[in-house]
Amino acid sequence: MSTRNREIHLASRPQGWPTADNFRLVETEVPTPGPGQIVVRNRYLSVDPYMRGRMNDVKSYVPPFALDAPLDGGAVGEVVAGEAGGLRPGDTVLHGLGWREYALLDAKAARKVDPDLAPVTAYLSVLGMTGLTAYAGLLEVAGMKPGETVFVSAAAGSVGSLVGQIAKLRGAGRVVGSAGSAAKVERLRALGFDAAFDYHDGPVRDSLRAAAPDGVDVYFDNVGGDHLEAAISAMRVHGRAAICGMIAQYNDTEPPAAPRNLALVIGKRLTLRGFLVGDHGHLRDEFVREMAGWLRDGKVSYDETVVDGIENAPEAFLGLLRGENLGKMLVRV
Amino acid sequence: MSTRNREIHLASRPQGWPTADNFRLVETEVPTPGPGQIVVRNRYLSVDPYMRGRMNDVKSYVPPFALDAPLDGGAVGEVVAGEAGGLRPGDTVLHGLGWREYALLDAKAARKVDPDLAPVTAYLSVLGMTGLTAYAGLLEVAGMKPGETVFVSAAAGSVGSLVGQIAKLRGAGRVVGSAGSAAKVERLRALGFDAAFDYHDGPVRDSLRAAAPDGVDVYFDNVGGDHLEAAISAMRVHGRAAICGMIAQYNDTEPPAAPRNLALVIGKRLTLRGFLVGDHGHLRDEFVREMAGWLRDGKVSYDETVVDGIENAPEAFLGLLRGENLGKMLVRV
Repeated sequence: MSTRNREIHLASRPQGWPTADNFRLVETEVPTPGPGQIVVRNRYLSVDPYMRGRMNDVKSYVPPFALDAPLDGGAVGEVVAGEAGGLRPGDTVLHGLGWREYALLDAKAARKVDPDLAPVTAYLSVLGMTGLTAYAGLLEVAGMKPGETVFVSAAAGSVGSLVGQIAKLRGAGRVVGSAGSAAKVERLRALGFDAAFDYHDGPVRDSLRAAAPDGVDVYFDNVGGDHLEAAISAMRVHGRAAICGMIAQYNDTEPPAAPRNLALVIGKRLTLRGFLVGDHGHLRDEFVREMAGWLRDGKVSYDETVVDGIENAPEAFLGLLRGENLGKMLVRV
Repeated sequence: MSTRNREIHLASRPQGWPTADNFRLVETEVPTPGPGQIVVRNRYLSVDPYMRGRMNDVKSYVPPFALDAPLDGGAVGEVVAGEAGGLRPGDTVLHGLGWREYALLDAKAARKVDPDLAPVTAYLSVLGMTGLTAYAGLLEVAGMKPGETVFVSAAAGSVGSLVGQIAKLRGAGRVVGSAGSAAKVERLRALGFDAAFDYHDGPVRDSLRAAAPDGVDVYFDNVGGDHLEAAISAMRVHGRAAICGMIAQYNDTEPPAAPRNLALVIGKRLTLRGFLVGDHGHLRDEFVREMAGWLRDGKVSYDETVVDGIENAPEAFLGLLRGENLGKMLVRV
């Protein structure tokens, strides 16, 4: 086993859009496990939009990343040293110390997964937090009912593409997605979306009205800004928005555009609700059972964009913020 | 019985702030009831902020007022002609055809009330739609729980003052109100609010932080704009906003200020929910029972600002928009 470990540190806090300079590749030694600990050789790392917020030094629901220390995030890999908590070398585990080749962690902070049941990357995406985010946001937070019209933004992303597919499988009457390129729009149609549009093609409000002329009951927001404003305008009486992310404004240095039509929530009795997947762990078993069935029956497809090499993890993250991914953005270590 | 009837018509649609010119006092004949109809001599008319929206020619949850026709709204008065649906001359009724001295209506559109049980004005305020709005918004829409901190804007208004008192009676840990003058702030303290501030005294965000240093669980919004933005900043994890009105922007001709901090709804898992009292009629019996008990025991106070004369109804409405009322704004006919 190599003794060289490489990890990505936060070198400086981005102002606005992050650049490669905000990251630093650092060589360290592979750590040695203490009692109750394991060392995991990471195979795949997850990069996610929420990480941008943690690069700012502001109080939020998770502490900010520290400067000159490795970033973290979802990862899957093999135990290579240590034996604790029922885990032993050779086991494949899911854990939260990504952005590095080797991770030292308490065994109880890792969860064993079965690499024969599904590709290991699925535990970072369709069967993991990503899938549960889509499932909980659509069904529990927004309370989608059969026959309703659903609109999801960033619909070609990892969460959005699952939101649309789950909506159809659970009986939505019409599913509309927005994305950032013609190729992505094409992909959404192949995934079974009833309508899809490229938000570059005109005001979101106009595109949405054309795609959902009878209005929207449920909006799954990954974008914020003009998408949220358009959704509020398009929403029908008693519409609900599950607000998962606002990627359009994560790199803003000025106060972001805010929906000027918010007063419509009164007359239309709308509900706008922010959520974090961590509040919905009680749905995990039900979700995994249902999603595994859909995957087995070929009813759900999921896309992955894989970038090779820990040294390219910052670029993968930057590409994600630029919308260069189709589906889940992963780094293969 | 006089045969002269006077009513207020909408003469023109206001652009921005309404003026006296938008209204016209019109003399007509007292109508004669047909089969199933009654004629009511109105005694008190309700003027309410939501009426401003109906003066615009836009699609909303209720149709806009028509030009050159009488306005309408809540009213209480005595049946003076007609006998139908169990109603007869001498009965006191609550109905929806205000802004006129005599109203002709279907008997089934009127509800008999007991003038000996409570002052007749109470049926337009504390025991009527106003009270139910406060009760339903606080307890059902926002789901206030004992021990929570509640913030209400326009707190010296008819709805706001009841929100604060109901919150205390239902066990809120701390109740904070904002209002537009030192006298109103004084009144809020007398009503049992734990803290109150005049929103002219500085940024709402700062005043609210001082009044609720540990944050807010429930925000009852009557104002919108800077109040809503401040509340979003002050809200604690899993906070809820019941959005009842946005009086700050009803007369805006430019797009209104919008909360620039809306992304906070995600990390704090906030719920913003607009509502109309009409969706909460199922609470009416429970509400009347509970509120009548509180009134009987002297636990709830309510203020009324009464303007005399149908010809002064437009001025009463304009005064309401300027915040000149304490509690419910009424016109005595």
